[in-house]
Amino acid sequence: MCQLLGMNCNVPTDICFSFTGFQARGGITDHHTDGWGITFFEGKGVRQFLDPKPSAHSPVADFIRTYPIKSTNVIAHIRKATQGDTKLENTHPFVREMWGRYWSFAHNGDLKNFEPAFDGRYRPVGNTDSEKAFCFILQELQKTFGDEAPSMEALGNKLHELTLALATFGVFNFLLSNGEFMLAHCSTKLASIIRKAPFNVAQLKDQDVKIDFSAVTTNKDQVAVIATNPLTDNEVWSIHEPGTLLLFSEGAVVTQYKTVPGPITNCISNA
Amino acid sequence: MCQLLGMNCNVPTDICFSFTGFQARGGITDHHTDGWGITFFEGKGVRQFLDPKPSAHSPVADFIRTYPIKSTNVIAHIRKATQGDTKLENTHPFVREMWGRYWSFAHNGDLKNFEPAFDGRYRPVGNTDSEKAFCFILQELQKTFGDEAPSMEALGNKLHELTLALATFGVFNFLLSNGEFMLAHCSTKLASIIRKAPFNVAQLKDQDVKIDFSAVTTNKDQVAVIATNPLTDNEVWSIHEPGTLLLFSEGAVVTQYKTVPGPITNCISNA
Repeated sequence: MCQLLGMNCNVPTDICFSFTGFQARGGITDHHTDGWGITFFEGKGVRQFLDPKPSAHSPVADFIRTYPIKSTNVIAHIRKATQGDTKLENTHPFVREMWGRYWSFAHNGDLKNFEPAFDGRYRPVGNTDSEKAFCFILQELQKTFGDEAPSMEALGNKLHELTLALATFGVFNFLLSNGEFMLAHCSTKLASIIRKAPFNVAQLKDQDVKIDFSAVTTNKDQVAVIATNPLTDNEVWSIHEPGTLLLFSEGAVVTQYKTVPGPITNCISNA
Repeated sequence: MCQLLGMNCNVPTDICFSFTGFQARGGITDHHTDGWGITFFEGKGVRQFLDPKPSAHSPVADFIRTYPIKSTNVIAHIRKATQGDTKLENTHPFVREMWGRYWSFAHNGDLKNFEPAFDGRYRPVGNTDSEKAFCFILQELQKTFGDEAPSMEALGNKLHELTLALATFGVFNFLLSNGEFMLAHCSTKLASIIRKAPFNVAQLKDQDVKIDFSAVTTNKDQVAVIATNPLTDNEVWSIHEPGTLLLFSEGAVVTQYKTVPGPITNCISNA
């Protein structure tokens, strides 16, 4: 399996602190050594850094850890290959354009025997189940809504339906963003934390590094960080129940969906 | 206007030497200060580094200059904005997927009143004439050939036709690659050099840097470097005639098309 890291905020924020802990999981504190990648949304633009090398020993990752890129939506991934060789084209996150915006996707899991029919609109370049899932999601969104982007509510409902369908093929923890929102699915394992005033000192679990967020933030800042496992050991993270799909916007959870059978399929919360 | 740099080779090669000279043109030896970017093809995968900062003062460019990424097709661009703000989404090269491969494009020029109709398959994210031209090219290729990639010859002929059409809107120097070939159009200004055995020492024009290629190559290597202006001052570059479209593969020109009216529209050469 792999590890995911996401960030969704109401002001452009750098991810250097969280990435410092995350990077170590790709070959030092954990064994996810089959490449890594990160996508930063800045306005409508996107920057993607990929490396098929282990993140702990990647010069590109060293650069990202020390160069602050301010972004409102970030998706990072370190890979432990299940399907698809360790090649650049199989390195997450993947990026495509839809409705005049870039979309990015990273997956932790394993979809068995998932062989969807592609109509040519979005086609995988590599041979991972993950890129197939991403292309399938975009294809189905485009089929449903045509050439104009729908409301976030309509999009969330359709993505909920697609997540339910895809999760029947296996483990499907994922992060998806179009630069406006972040969708995070806990299929088996996912945690998150929302940092807002009053900000405190945070201490990484994977490296002997801490930060005083009160020195680098304003009272209005709100930052959601999402990760396979909590990145700090002195803060309270939400450990999500398997079968939870969370829609983050502006650093808050705006909608929460259930993806296991049950009576509640769509409930609004104000985290 | 902008500056272009491309590389097409028969073995994966790093572009650190050429990029060292090119980077200086984004704010030191020339005034193209509205961002820069570079795309590296590695197998079917692609790595894209973009920065809206001037390349001469960009930490990302400093990293690229010193970190050798071996690639058979590279496209780099430094921007002097004509249409579209200095924003990440307007920074070249652009990347899209077609026929299960990534395609990348960068443009030096200015297309006036170019407002094509987009059918939704490929849509610009930013607001440059360049990204419009790229999306239009992909849309027309997809309309012509459907969902399966044609032969390189058929593709070259169609791209020749599209280049002729687009060049009627204004200055249209460009580089286009799908990781297999590199198409280079000289609308007003473009030079190239093909380096092969016996390799020699090359001296940059824009920086006091030289390299002995014989120490870092084998006799089989063949590397085509394409640039708006020659990058070295002790080698013989081909200065292309305006109205020349060149198809490079494996470090050689495989087809040359004319894009100004005249009797010869398609001639094969072995450079």
